[in-house]
Amino acid sequence: MATRPPITHCLSKHFGNAVRQFREGKGWSQELLAEQADLNRSYIGELERGQAIASLMTLEKLATAFGVSMSHLLSHTERIAMSNNANTFELTSIAC
Amino acid sequence: MATRPPITHCLSKHFGNAVRQFREGKGWSQELLAEQADLNRSYIGELERGQAIASLMTLEKLATAFGVSMSHLLSHTERIAMSNNANTFELTSIAC
Repeated sequence: MATRPPITHCLSKHFGNAVRQFREGKGWSQELLAEQADLNRSYIGELERGQAIASLMTLEKLATAFGVSMSHLLSHTERIAMSNNANTFELTSIAC
Repeated sequence: MATRPPITHCLSKHFGNAVRQFREGKGWSQELLAEQADLNRSYIGELERGQAIASLMTLEKLATAFGVSMSHLLSHTERIAMSNNANTFELTSIAC
């Protein structure tokens, strides 16, 4: 059985999924999001893949670019996490 | 006239105030919060003074220690920021 990854790893994955969903909802490329949020394109890619942990500064830049509050972007992240955990329970798979 | 500090500086100040308010609401010392959140005591002090920028990992640890969601802790931060901005408008002072 696979070892459950640490919660912090899950958090970065779920946050990355939230960022990707918001970006795709706007029909933006990673390049365009990077430009709108004043962040590096490769950093956006790392965030979306859950390979980087965002700071509150980054969260603020992304939320501002998407035109939402920071808490809204995090609420969406939490919904993804809950949905993922529910699926995990059903599938008895790993958490993220 | 004082120069308005950068928004990221304001964010860390407002987040620090939110953390302090939640901690004091529980009647906890910084030491106890550090223990509950598995963080360093001096780091808690830096966060509360707005001298450190939290990562999402730190936000998650603090929210878990307080028994609230990450988005709830950030909503409170945003309320502090809005209240502060309103006061700033009235007093024509600096933002944070």
